[in-house]
Amino acid sequence: MELPKPRDFSQVPAYIPGKSEERVKAEYGLETVIKLSSNENPMGPSPKALLAVQHHLSSAFRYPDHTSTALRECLAAYHDLPADHFLVSAGLEEMINCIGRAYILEGQRAVMPEVSFIKYVISARLMDSPPQFVPMKDFGIDLDGMLQAVDDRTKIIWIANPNNPTGTYLSETQLKEFLSHIPPRILVVLDEAYCEFADAPDYPQNSHRYFEEYPNVLVLRTFSKAFGLATFRIGYAIGIPELLEPILKVREIFSVSSLSETAACAALQDTEFLEHYRQLVLTEKKRYYHELDRMAPLGISYVETQGNFIYITLPEESQKVFQGLQQRGVIVRPAGKYGIRVTIGIPEENDAFFAGLEEVIREMRSTP
Amino acid sequence: MELPKPRDFSQVPAYIPGKSEERVKAEYGLETVIKLSSNENPMGPSPKALLAVQHHLSSAFRYPDHTSTALRECLAAYHDLPADHFLVSAGLEEMINCIGRAYILEGQRAVMPEVSFIKYVISARLMDSPPQFVPMKDFGIDLDGMLQAVDDRTKIIWIANPNNPTGTYLSETQLKEFLSHIPPRILVVLDEAYCEFADAPDYPQNSHRYFEEYPNVLVLRTFSKAFGLATFRIGYAIGIPELLEPILKVREIFSVSSLSETAACAALQDTEFLEHYRQLVLTEKKRYYHELDRMAPLGISYVETQGNFIYITLPEESQKVFQGLQQRGVIVRPAGKYGIRVTIGIPEENDAFFAGLEEVIREMRSTP
Repeated sequence: MELPKPRDFSQVPAYIPGKSEERVKAEYGLETVIKLSSNENPMGPSPKALLAVQHHLSSAFRYPDHTSTALRECLAAYHDLPADHFLVSAGLEEMINCIGRAYILEGQRAVMPEVSFIKYVISARLMDSPPQFVPMKDFGIDLDGMLQAVDDRTKIIWIANPNNPTGTYLSETQLKEFLSHIPPRILVVLDEAYCEFADAPDYPQNSHRYFEEYPNVLVLRTFSKAFGLATFRIGYAIGIPELLEPILKVREIFSVSSLSETAACAALQDTEFLEHYRQLVLTEKKRYYHELDRMAPLGISYVETQGNFIYITLPEESQKVFQGLQQRGVIVRPAGKYGIRVTIGIPEENDAFFAGLEEVIREMRSTP
Repeated sequence: MELPKPRDFSQVPAYIPGKSEERVKAEYGLETVIKLSSNENPMGPSPKALLAVQHHLSSAFRYPDHTSTALRECLAAYHDLPADHFLVSAGLEEMINCIGRAYILEGQRAVMPEVSFIKYVISARLMDSPPQFVPMKDFGIDLDGMLQAVDDRTKIIWIANPNNPTGTYLSETQLKEFLSHIPPRILVVLDEAYCEFADAPDYPQNSHRYFEEYPNVLVLRTFSKAFGLATFRIGYAIGIPELLEPILKVREIFSVSSLSETAACAALQDTEFLEHYRQLVLTEKKRYYHELDRMAPLGISYVETQGNFIYITLPEESQKVFQGLQQRGVIVRPAGKYGIRVTIGIPEENDAFFAGLEEVIREMRSTP
């Protein structure tokens, strides 16, 4: 049967989302399932955000404001920057694709760490541009390697800080030094989806103002992680208007719902909720270190994290460990052949993960 | 200052959304503003949909299901088709762009009516593909002209039925005859965003099953118009899975919120609400005909409509009439040099429009 022929997508990797709790429950006949695979806020959405949405529901028959003026004004106040320095998108997923579409011209390439957010790869591949991968250094981003990879074809440099899935970070000094070597014709994107969880004293606090010195820098932030608003689909970029305009050109019209705008503005005010969650992550992160140190004799190790997740290296193949955990009702995310990425949950969720991991590894090691 | 150079978007037309009530109120210092520019449901969202959303709000911290399984199952039941024959997107705006991205290969073109939804033009231009425009025939889509425009480069044919902004329609017989002449290598997209309002007895009732005979046909539907859920961003395509898969490849991950899925499923059940609105449109449409007939001596005319909007031709430039109406607190949409598109509202809104239009035209005619 002859059919309209689509583009060839064989080079575009699939993004495989974590399975939902409902699906794992059904597949394994489980009553309780714990989802630690998507770095969502386990405390739920900000209650103030939900209240604001409820008040706004009756206006849902209207199209949203194409440029999210109200939200950009909230962001302007929050970051003390002009509103035209913000571009809002349906999550950073949309933003990352749009940056590729707006900036990768024929023959141009994007430099990115080998182990990072897969959307950078997809964004380049959708533009028929093979990514320029830079190997990791101790699970972290190798800025010297990134700099060496830059050539005449390079148009975008992707840096996740903290990095996903490894949880490592780059300091203010490292980043500034790196930026000083990058030609201004190259767009440097700092993806700070997890910045709210960083507690390292030298983690950059002022990257949203780097554009003042380096106008070729864009900073990305999201409401899907710390703010607990993943399904509302809201991310944003901070940068000079000249860089943001082309991205808006390729972004969908009306991509951010007015309900999402309302939720985001209210969540920005809910500092108590954010701080409560942040403390939970910092406290539980120490428990992860402690419990995983205890499991070191089993061949389990981890990378210290600045995110709300932790990268764990295993003595067995990650797919098998992932399956074993899933059978026990704990969903994590395989990351590489011998690694998993685990979201830091509430204490009971983390306890279930610790017990499950130990059990799975012990079982695998005793059955040859 | 050197900056990263974006793609050249000079050929991509801007989509200019209708101004919001709030903005027009502020600009003109008005207390009441009536928005008849975006073909939204003036009765608001389906109350059942809002109730369902409220029950679901607390799970908003989770990412949505990438392929909207629950909603596709609701649609499958609603249309009595398999769930894999549906693809959900963030409104038809996203779908139309994605169809272009997935199917327009280098050198290929899209055939479209000269006066239709501007997103078809944007979708082609974003793929660096100049649209093949076909002139209108009595404000309607000229299928013979469309057929003649088809050549070796043609990859997509866009047909809005009813057509936006003219409100004309194509009958079952006309469409079937047309489809029988189109080679199967060409994708035919029937955009039925306004199908719920059609009352012509020969309007196609079974186009969602045309794929059985013509597998190269995709049908588009939306929840933004009849269902009153514009800000939730939900549209969908009906067609064979082989045609839908490439579109999913270029669609954003998680583009449809789980709240939107919930709202849409509930709205599909709310047949009473839909029927109530439909009757409102059909009744008020007759009032539009009556009032506009009365204004015929002023040089005002209109095109009979199958949508929830009406295309009105004017004796004066549409931009001037649009401005005059806006000063009086009525927002409509200019469409062409001497036309406006007006959403059929609730009776009081329509009364305000009738009075405003007559006043504006009389004033313009008396001031040389």
